[in-house]
Amino acid sequence: MPVPHLTTALQGPLLELERRILAAQPQIEHWFRTRWNQHATPFYGSVDLRNSGFKLAPVDMNLFPGGFNNLNPEFLPLAVQAAQSAVDKVCPEARSLLLIPENHTRNTYYLQNVATLVHIFEQAGLKVRVGTLNPEVTAPAELATASGGTLTVEPIVRAGNRLKLADGFDPCVVLLNNDLSAGIPPLLENLEQSLLPPLHAGWAVRRKSNHFAAYDEVASEFAELISIDPWTINPYFEQCSGLDFHSRQGEEALAATVDGMLAKIRAKYAEHGIEQEPFVIVKADAGTYGMGVMSVKKGEEVIGLNRKARNKMSVVKEGLEVSEVIVQEGVYTFETVNEAVAEPVVYMMDRYVIGGFYRVHTGRGIDENLNAPGMHFVPLTFECPCLPDKQGAPDCPPNRFYAYGVIARLALLAAALELEATDPDA
Amino acid sequence: MPVPHLTTALQGPLLELERRILAAQPQIEHWFRTRWNQHATPFYGSVDLRNSGFKLAPVDMNLFPGGFNNLNPEFLPLAVQAAQSAVDKVCPEARSLLLIPENHTRNTYYLQNVATLVHIFEQAGLKVRVGTLNPEVTAPAELATASGGTLTVEPIVRAGNRLKLADGFDPCVVLLNNDLSAGIPPLLENLEQSLLPPLHAGWAVRRKSNHFAAYDEVASEFAELISIDPWTINPYFEQCSGLDFHSRQGEEALAATVDGMLAKIRAKYAEHGIEQEPFVIVKADAGTYGMGVMSVKKGEEVIGLNRKARNKMSVVKEGLEVSEVIVQEGVYTFETVNEAVAEPVVYMMDRYVIGGFYRVHTGRGIDENLNAPGMHFVPLTFECPCLPDKQGAPDCPPNRFYAYGVIARLALLAAALELEATDPDA
Repeated sequence: MPVPHLTTALQGPLLELERRILAAQPQIEHWFRTRWNQHATPFYGSVDLRNSGFKLAPVDMNLFPGGFNNLNPEFLPLAVQAAQSAVDKVCPEARSLLLIPENHTRNTYYLQNVATLVHIFEQAGLKVRVGTLNPEVTAPAELATASGGTLTVEPIVRAGNRLKLADGFDPCVVLLNNDLSAGIPPLLENLEQSLLPPLHAGWAVRRKSNHFAAYDEVASEFAELISIDPWTINPYFEQCSGLDFHSRQGEEALAATVDGMLAKIRAKYAEHGIEQEPFVIVKADAGTYGMGVMSVKKGEEVIGLNRKARNKMSVVKEGLEVSEVIVQEGVYTFETVNEAVAEPVVYMMDRYVIGGFYRVHTGRGIDENLNAPGMHFVPLTFECPCLPDKQGAPDCPPNRFYAYGVIARLALLAAALELEATDPDA
Repeated sequence: MPVPHLTTALQGPLLELERRILAAQPQIEHWFRTRWNQHATPFYGSVDLRNSGFKLAPVDMNLFPGGFNNLNPEFLPLAVQAAQSAVDKVCPEARSLLLIPENHTRNTYYLQNVATLVHIFEQAGLKVRVGTLNPEVTAPAELATASGGTLTVEPIVRAGNRLKLADGFDPCVVLLNNDLSAGIPPLLENLEQSLLPPLHAGWAVRRKSNHFAAYDEVASEFAELISIDPWTINPYFEQCSGLDFHSRQGEEALAATVDGMLAKIRAKYAEHGIEQEPFVIVKADAGTYGMGVMSVKKGEEVIGLNRKARNKMSVVKEGLEVSEVIVQEGVYTFETVNEAVAEPVVYMMDRYVIGGFYRVHTGRGIDENLNAPGMHFVPLTFECPCLPDKQGAPDCPPNRFYAYGVIARLALLAAALELEATDPDA
């Protein structure tokens, strides 16, 4: 699939929020530098953003990002440089890296993502091999990637407290590109080697509500720094637990939470003169891949769900049961590409923004989740890095992407706080 | 001047040395990582390389690099990312930077270099102003750059132990792009602010012989790492002091040194089956800009120099008197662009290679110095970063540039050792 270049999906003059961010660039970068000296940067991450014009906010933060294959290959050197920095922080003595991907063996786009990661770390000067948790892989297997290349995936051998490969390959660093939705395999516990991201970043343990609680903190501090209403970069959220979609347990409480949040959004919309109809997203507190996600405009919509909707909501990836959800303020996306709805996804490694792309859906509305399973989406790579161009026009693409890079890094910083707060060894 | 793209000046199959370097990439990168954890990286630098096919070596290492305007603008994001890393190491609290350039006010290409540096550090999130040591600038002056833009240059105010600008601008970091050939101005002494590079990196104090002595060490260790003869990456050098070109003092000793070195090179050429005629470069031990440089094939050539040659050798930039020279093994450049002689110049910031260009001279021979004052040269920007492409053909441009980036980083590491060894406060 050829990846078309794209200026930005959002055209027109720079929005007030983007203008504020651009004008405060030196303060913002200084602020990030000081924060990164206080908190360990997550190894890598991607952030889904939504831009409604009046609001630019992260709606999901992925600590095991796929989709590296969708980044602009021209900017891979940025990723390599960031990878060098990331590896250096974790283990300056590192010579070799074992990459553990998801268990998919037939998703050629995902495998292309893995191949791209291998390439980045090889360029950074590491020996890289791919080891899988998939019990079906019992010998080294050559898998086809979307670009027509192959990726060799090997079974992992546990020797004492180290992960190795059958031929004795003994990596210094183990990098997960597997979000552990299926739980933490005993194979990964108590390793001598540096394991990144840490096990508590996986969906077996991680909760979106912890992330967004940390984001509340980060967004408030940042909003004060550049004198904006924190709401313009931060969606409301609330957690609901004790749910059982099959037995309809907890539906009423969930509906009340939805209605309460819709009322709060309505008040904010009135305050800012916004005429859209508020909506909220209900999604699993743990898990990814857009399963277990509903877009809701009235509390009563979550009551008496039909069987199909209940099934959809009750199980996310790897069969993880949903008993806790978060209700998150919905952010309209006003970005479109050829009339299709688009949302930016920004990629980071260490503290650096290394690129991004638009997730573009033809079949979805501006109030829907675009990260849905099995749906075809077109990745439109960012044309330029997320660096501002102070000599360029205020609304030139680099300046617009800069704001995206800033908001994405706020989510990355929130993830750093979240991982500190949830660290079982702390 | 439009900057044409260039694959590499050197065509043809990968040379044995380049092949060795490429094959050992993971070991090399690991080795660099460990070294950078032992030694502080110079803030920035550029290295002049010569590639004779049988030998690939640095011939000069500049700690106050000009020529940033000649880098490929597409890769400026790499420089910005490296600048963020460099600033973060020196002073994570930094908000603002004062750049002190050379005193040239009419060299529009140099001013374009300064403007490019300003742009890079602004992109990295700093407030950047340009302060000059030039006593002729008594009020803020707008100077024209080669691209048609302007650069505002302001007089520096010393307030106690801080450098400021007249309006109170009080930078956290002072970055020199002035190599202090004219001596260390009292204005720069005993500053509270971080001053980079340190004063002893300036040509008022620095000696090429110290650099190449450190390079001997680095090159030997590296050669052992990848099992090569260190001579293939390291030109012989010797220092001669007590010279006075005007009174012809020390000529005989210099001639003897030249002849001794030519004999050593001849022996190496015989060992490696090389048929070229050996030559040496005689140049000032302190100073830059290719003044005070001679290419010599016989000791007697340095005896009885005519007035013009004596004048040329006796004074370098800013009228610095030459009484010490180094005699350095000459490395033929076998790289040509349209039949003109070319030599690669590699740029680094922090530990990262951020680009480079070819210095191309139509009027010079393959055994001459190409960094000559007042001479017109054509910069041909590197087309790609100095990262290897393991999936590409062995002789594809990225793989060739990788070897250049490695040798340039060896010189950068030597500069780190040199600055440690010559630190007056150590």
